[in-house]
Amino acid sequence: MKDLKKMWEELGMDLELHDQLIQNQANLHKKTHLSQKNRPKAMARFDDAFHASHAERVAEIIDYRKKGGKSIGTFCIYVPDEIALAADVLPIPLCGGSDWSVSYADKMFPRDICPIIRSTFGMAFSNTCPYSTLKDFALGETTCDAKKKAWDLLGFKVMEVPQKKNPIDRGLWLQEVYNFKEMVENLSGIKVTEEKLHKNIQLVNRKRKALQRIDEFRKLPDPPISGLDALLVSQVALNQDTHKFIGDAEELADELKDRADAGISAYDGTGIRVMIAGSPSPMGNAKIHHIVESSGLRIVVDESCTGLRYYRDLVDESPQDLDGMMRAVADRYFAIDCSCFSPNTERMDSISRLVKEYSVNGVIQNILQYCHTYNVEAKVVENILQKSGIPSIKIETDYSQEDIGRIRTRIEAFAEMVKESL
Amino acid sequence: MKDLKKMWEELGMDLELHDQLIQNQANLHKKTHLSQKNRPKAMARFDDAFHASHAERVAEIIDYRKKGGKSIGTFCIYVPDEIALAADVLPIPLCGGSDWSVSYADKMFPRDICPIIRSTFGMAFSNTCPYSTLKDFALGETTCDAKKKAWDLLGFKVMEVPQKKNPIDRGLWLQEVYNFKEMVENLSGIKVTEEKLHKNIQLVNRKRKALQRIDEFRKLPDPPISGLDALLVSQVALNQDTHKFIGDAEELADELKDRADAGISAYDGTGIRVMIAGSPSPMGNAKIHHIVESSGLRIVVDESCTGLRYYRDLVDESPQDLDGMMRAVADRYFAIDCSCFSPNTERMDSISRLVKEYSVNGVIQNILQYCHTYNVEAKVVENILQKSGIPSIKIETDYSQEDIGRIRTRIEAFAEMVKESL
Repeated sequence: MKDLKKMWEELGMDLELHDQLIQNQANLHKKTHLSQKNRPKAMARFDDAFHASHAERVAEIIDYRKKGGKSIGTFCIYVPDEIALAADVLPIPLCGGSDWSVSYADKMFPRDICPIIRSTFGMAFSNTCPYSTLKDFALGETTCDAKKKAWDLLGFKVMEVPQKKNPIDRGLWLQEVYNFKEMVENLSGIKVTEEKLHKNIQLVNRKRKALQRIDEFRKLPDPPISGLDALLVSQVALNQDTHKFIGDAEELADELKDRADAGISAYDGTGIRVMIAGSPSPMGNAKIHHIVESSGLRIVVDESCTGLRYYRDLVDESPQDLDGMMRAVADRYFAIDCSCFSPNTERMDSISRLVKEYSVNGVIQNILQYCHTYNVEAKVVENILQKSGIPSIKIETDYSQEDIGRIRTRIEAFAEMVKESL
Repeated sequence: MKDLKKMWEELGMDLELHDQLIQNQANLHKKTHLSQKNRPKAMARFDDAFHASHAERVAEIIDYRKKGGKSIGTFCIYVPDEIALAADVLPIPLCGGSDWSVSYADKMFPRDICPIIRSTFGMAFSNTCPYSTLKDFALGETTCDAKKKAWDLLGFKVMEVPQKKNPIDRGLWLQEVYNFKEMVENLSGIKVTEEKLHKNIQLVNRKRKALQRIDEFRKLPDPPISGLDALLVSQVALNQDTHKFIGDAEELADELKDRADAGISAYDGTGIRVMIAGSPSPMGNAKIHHIVESSGLRIVVDESCTGLRYYRDLVDESPQDLDGMMRAVADRYFAIDCSCFSPNTERMDSISRLVKEYSVNGVIQNILQYCHTYNVEAKVVENILQKSGIPSIKIETDYSQEDIGRIRTRIEAFAEMVKESL
């Protein structure tokens, strides 16, 4: 602890405020994840990783950078990890999930933008983000208005994610992916070779496959892992060292297999099976997942960017030449069905497919306040679910704790409605 | 009036609600525009055009369509009028400025999106928009999240406006402009020829030049037209028949010349000179302009989409071949400095230039609530103005009348501050 304090101090952090932040986060984690019964033992590793994200993980990155390693800050699953890693550049996803820091963003940003941006920059502005000084540059993207304009205001580099999925958009995106390669190569002075890119495509695919393997067990009638814990695993995937994460995730998957074989459920009794759809829940935020599962429902699939959208698709490993690999990477990311696309029929198809694959009884749309794209698209989602007779509910909320009671009441009423519809 | 009632009825409109809407609009117009002293006589034509927008103008379009004419609904100044007109297709801008209709949008859209979308579709959903059935299709664009996703939800056609201004974006936009040409040609069955496109480039240029001519008089120490009236002229430009508009605008400009020569001001006494920057004010909404000028300030320039951004740039008339003309049209629209671009340095340069050209003492950023792009970019604008010692204030508001007192107090305090800084 003394070493950590010294480390934070050397990073120029505000120790007092940071103590408040981590205390707040630890309390929340205790109230949510740790209050669950029937957890897999391996979840302890992810609890540790959660706490380590402001501690040991930071020390690792400091060490890595002291040895000349380069790192960049990212805010979206559109930034291709494979290419960064192939240039020996470490991408650090920086999206904040803590309500504690939100108000510190007010000196720069309007209050009526989404809590992800406010939480992220609230940490930066209050000197409680350990990663602020641990990056060579920050790289944003154009997936939503508030983020896009935040990058401009802060002078960040920006990758352009197009807004349609026509051939010309695919071409634009491929060029952006090539620009990104040049960006990271220039940063580290290391060329992205065929060998290195292929190796890292395989590495990141392994990470995504481990996450997919865990998800398979959630299709069972009695899932051996809760939706709340599965969320934590995804959140950790975005922070932890890739190799370490793969090891921990595989161990968890092995345990889930044993639990499934032995008929051990993460849940008591029975409960309706729901999908979480909509906005992401970055590390520190598990608000809706906790309310839903502590109300007796089971989250068996999460289609958000902090759920399946992050690991659903793999990069095609067959191309052997650099351009082929670059195209395979670009295509994998271009297939992401973010609500920034117009139209976004791929997302509707995916939701319909997932409802069947995971035997979903109802869908909860978790919409972060002022997230216009998911919020307006929620009506499209509602319409397609209605057509196939799947009840859904839209919860529009931020990170604050104040509306928990009201949301719980709505979720309980929703559960009753779903039960009656079965 | 009897004929109008019959027309509205035949359009399937709700007569009772529509009466409420036009009564509300007429009252507002009386309280704002008509309450000004020292108005140019020619403004009566624009007052008439304002009232005609739900009456005689509608009859004109019905007549045009009965004779086989085609029309499309648009929502943004990115849709190239020149090309539509060259294919004998009439573009009808549909953005709503009425507070009256806003709540009618709630059955489809979230409440926390901008009032333009809510007002527009509130009119459509309450059967008070006369243009709902007077278009062959609606064409949206991707300039902001809420609009982009609204088009998806409603199944509209969408033009992709890119988010950066790199050569590849310019290429994408040119293709979208070509797609638009095909769209309108297919609709009317009329080919866009060199001759027709050239003629319509000249026509729309004439319209923009007339608007520019009016603006020139606002640079004078005592402008012969108010900012509130100049806004009405711009709003009418988006609805009225182009030829009629050019005639009326030229007549107004002639009168402004006479007034300027005779030293007739639109304002009493003196007043500080301000620029309005930010979100557009579609016809029906003159809230901020009215508060500002009735508080003794003078709006000498408006850089919004319902101001200079609509008519600042002309299409280059020199190309003689079709592809050259298409490129000239595309380039003219690509130069628009909408806040949807990342970065948007062109807008900052434009604002700095306008401050000098129009001898601006202070800038009022008029930000429509939940308009993330202009809202976040407002900080960038504030920063560049601060550097050149120009005071600015950001007013975040919707179309409602409830915050008028509070805004007036802030504007008055701002005026005091500006006076002290002079």
